[in-house]
Amino acid sequence: MQKYSEMSKEQLQALKKELDQQYAEIKAQGLALDMSRGKPSVDQLNISMDMMDVLSSSTDLRCETGVDCRNYGVMDGIPEAKRLLGEISEVDPEHIIIYGNSSLNVMFDTVSRSMTHGVMGNTPWCKLDKVKFLCPVPGYDRHFKITEFFGIEMINVPMSPEGPDMDIVEKLVSEDPAIKGIWCVPKYSNPQGYTYSEETVKRFANLKPAAPDFRIYWDNAYSVHHLYDDEKDQDFLLEILDECEKAGNPDMVYKFTSTSKISFPGSGIAALAASKANLDDIRKYITVQTIGHDKLNQLRHVKFFKDLEGVHAHMKKHAAILRPKFEMVEATLEKELGGLGIGEWTTPKGGYFISFESLDGCAKKIVAMAKEAGVVMTGAGATYPYGKDPKDSNIRIAPSFPPIEELEKAAQVFVVCVKLASVEKLLAE
Amino acid sequence: MQKYSEMSKEQLQALKKELDQQYAEIKAQGLALDMSRGKPSVDQLNISMDMMDVLSSSTDLRCETGVDCRNYGVMDGIPEAKRLLGEISEVDPEHIIIYGNSSLNVMFDTVSRSMTHGVMGNTPWCKLDKVKFLCPVPGYDRHFKITEFFGIEMINVPMSPEGPDMDIVEKLVSEDPAIKGIWCVPKYSNPQGYTYSEETVKRFANLKPAAPDFRIYWDNAYSVHHLYDDEKDQDFLLEILDECEKAGNPDMVYKFTSTSKISFPGSGIAALAASKANLDDIRKYITVQTIGHDKLNQLRHVKFFKDLEGVHAHMKKHAAILRPKFEMVEATLEKELGGLGIGEWTTPKGGYFISFESLDGCAKKIVAMAKEAGVVMTGAGATYPYGKDPKDSNIRIAPSFPPIEELEKAAQVFVVCVKLASVEKLLAE
Repeated sequence: MQKYSEMSKEQLQALKKELDQQYAEIKAQGLALDMSRGKPSVDQLNISMDMMDVLSSSTDLRCETGVDCRNYGVMDGIPEAKRLLGEISEVDPEHIIIYGNSSLNVMFDTVSRSMTHGVMGNTPWCKLDKVKFLCPVPGYDRHFKITEFFGIEMINVPMSPEGPDMDIVEKLVSEDPAIKGIWCVPKYSNPQGYTYSEETVKRFANLKPAAPDFRIYWDNAYSVHHLYDDEKDQDFLLEILDECEKAGNPDMVYKFTSTSKISFPGSGIAALAASKANLDDIRKYITVQTIGHDKLNQLRHVKFFKDLEGVHAHMKKHAAILRPKFEMVEATLEKELGGLGIGEWTTPKGGYFISFESLDGCAKKIVAMAKEAGVVMTGAGATYPYGKDPKDSNIRIAPSFPPIEELEKAAQVFVVCVKLASVEKLLAE
Repeated sequence: MQKYSEMSKEQLQALKKELDQQYAEIKAQGLALDMSRGKPSVDQLNISMDMMDVLSSSTDLRCETGVDCRNYGVMDGIPEAKRLLGEISEVDPEHIIIYGNSSLNVMFDTVSRSMTHGVMGNTPWCKLDKVKFLCPVPGYDRHFKITEFFGIEMINVPMSPEGPDMDIVEKLVSEDPAIKGIWCVPKYSNPQGYTYSEETVKRFANLKPAAPDFRIYWDNAYSVHHLYDDEKDQDFLLEILDECEKAGNPDMVYKFTSTSKISFPGSGIAALAASKANLDDIRKYITVQTIGHDKLNQLRHVKFFKDLEGVHAHMKKHAAILRPKFEMVEATLEKELGGLGIGEWTTPKGGYFISFESLDGCAKKIVAMAKEAGVVMTGAGATYPYGKDPKDSNIRIAPSFPPIEELEKAAQVFVVCVKLASVEKLLAE
């Protein structure tokens, strides 16, 4: 394979002609494929269908403490659901509050509450001149949308395979009291699929923030979402609440999780794990906000999964569907782009995304070309705050939703777009 | 019956002796009864049990537009759920957004959003020196808790059987731009069971608020919650969105509803009805807040109820259980307290509460005495902002939850407490 950067202008022009031809042929196919969002596929949804049967008109709908799950009440969630989500989150049930169907909503509410009421007695953020969040990049667009929506200034922090650049995080957090939070997807990160190293987690737990109301927003969205069954092929993440406690910073973290990509997206249950002091602070808010979340759905989840072992067994079924998709995309990238020097990509062992780095200034073009050829990808820039990727190079590939035969076509379209955009860039230099 | 106020001191003393004896006997029974909250009873929950069977592993879980309800998406709610909740709310589905399990949460979010982001382009309330709400009293304690939590000043407005005193509402709303809202339970009001008259609704729709972001918080919690099946024994409420539109005030109202007391409290679905301009404003927020609410539960509700006729048929079953409880409590009050001049009460044709007015300064004492005798009632004062009933006279009776034989005992305890507290008050004068 010859690197594109080492090609002569003539070679590049000849290549462009060939690629133009390929691209035109693809467009003529009139494809309509979607690699944009981390949505489970129909096959994945089907493996949870038995959940529809675990509660019936003849089921005893009381939880283990005898409370009727059909009626009002039980703010924190039923004990067996707290235990199950506690196991998934690797924390004691006493550190868990069960919410409704969306952990994103819990994160939104957490920021919203901090704006209007402050964190554990500190000044409400809406009364401050400036509030800032650190944003490891590339990251999750919906996180960035929340902080943007509340007018919070976002500061990019570069990611590495070990996690965010902790030198920068430590410096900024310890110096600037306006920094109130950092968005983290610590395991199988969105979009790179990186898992924070033990050292990174320990450095997080030992932060010395200038702001007493600084919190780590630890979105453990993919805690049990491995692609490989063998433990040696899985990433391991140190438990952050425990580490924060050990470091004398018990209140510094909010940990979010949900069953959205375990059972049914949109009909799962979400949970927050935090210190008792944080949870007590939050309870003052929830008590005013609602009379309680959907306990029948909590019961449904517990009856279906039973315990962590049940969850792991279920996740293996997800992995069996997802793994070939990831491997096919990665093989296509390797086969078509390997050695060309026009892109790099991650090969995660879990989660929902592959992150692709194009030549600088090509991401927007690649995504636009793919779209024109009938393949919708996550908008270029989406993985950065304000949608602004400074190098215009990061593209999030979401292989989960399309059936594998469609995904294969989409991957072929994608590599042609990458090649063409790269050639055009090099020709323009 | 001799009025207590016309009794001599000696008569009152003799009566007190007798009542002390009765009260002691009641206490000795060691009762544990709960008339505190508007919770449906077990019998009521049982009538919805078939809802647990309408979705099963063999059900097609797509909504009528073909969207898979198991996956992410469909922010507004599935069309058939918008239609059903639209029918219950008496508005077109296009004016409806379906939410999660709690209309209280929708109201909370509505206030919270107004604090942080303002209403349709107006200044966020958190940037204002003062925000005020009008609170028809007695009213719903959870409404008042929300506005109190956000530091909103609450102003009492007296209720009558026609609704809030509209002379006061019109005057205050037109004069004071700090007044941003009014809490209303317009049908079978909480706690009095009053339904706003046609004139009241029309005067609401024709308000000329000084604040452009003034909104009527129309909590239509009991829209189909009649106690009697015959239409002539039901209250009728004019539809407010329509009236506001006619009056040239299309954006002035948020209308809230839910199925909490139709299907299962805590596992129902909630909805907001408002003008297109309001809904568009709110969608900007929801889009950041969540990827969508629980569509499977929406589908479950539609499959169970089918349409408004199905809802009405179902509500008759609720009424058959609730009606005897209300009638028994009212009969007990009439038999034991009628003509004594020591209390007045409402006799609603729907909803969940009976409102009791004791002699001034007796409510707290009556509730405390009942509690000591093993009967928990809604805390005295709860029906007023800040928990402060200026005359200490209003008590909310919630007859729904206890089985009727327990309710009968509780009612007997209550009347003894009313008598005893009244005698003590008169003796102390």
